[in-house]
Amino acid sequence: AAPARPARLGLCAACHGETGMAQMPGAPNLAGQRLDYLRNALAQYHDGRRDVAVMRAAIGPVSDAELDALARWYSAQPPAPQARP
Amino acid sequence: AAPARPARLGLCAACHGETGMAQMPGAPNLAGQRLDYLRNALAQYHDGRRDVAVMRAAIGPVSDAELDALARWYSAQPPAPQARP
Repeated sequence: AAPARPARLGLCAACHGETGMAQMPGAPNLAGQRLDYLRNALAQYHDGRRDVAVMRAAIGPVSDAELDALARWYSAQPPAPQARP
Repeated sequence: AAPARPARLGLCAACHGETGMAQMPGAPNLAGQRLDYLRNALAQYHDGRRDVAVMRAAIGPVSDAELDALARWYSAQPPAPQARP
């Protein structure tokens, strides 16, 4: 079953889109990304191994359970071809 | 037009697949990823801001022009829904 829409989705969606297609230069698409990779990336942003200020600030107040729900949400979204310039 | 198949594609494909769908736990899908993000990630692996030994070793001998061709290749691949466990 598809995961329920996470309560904190809006925090991520400003840059990554609600369905994981990036809305902003520099932000990656997340739709359909592998769940293990997303979980690991969040852990690395949290502890600074990936030192990206906006990500550290964004996820700092988010609980581990909420982060996991967000990773599952994005991994479950069907990826779409990106718009071509 | 779609980019030509890069000469060094095999180096990446062992983990990321020829079409950017990951073949291995821990490796992300790259198909359809934003080109700016892929270019930035390669620069970060190269200089150690993203400290991932396998990536640093893999791209160390690859020229900037070849790296850019690889980024363009993967960004141009149509993303596919991932297999569900």
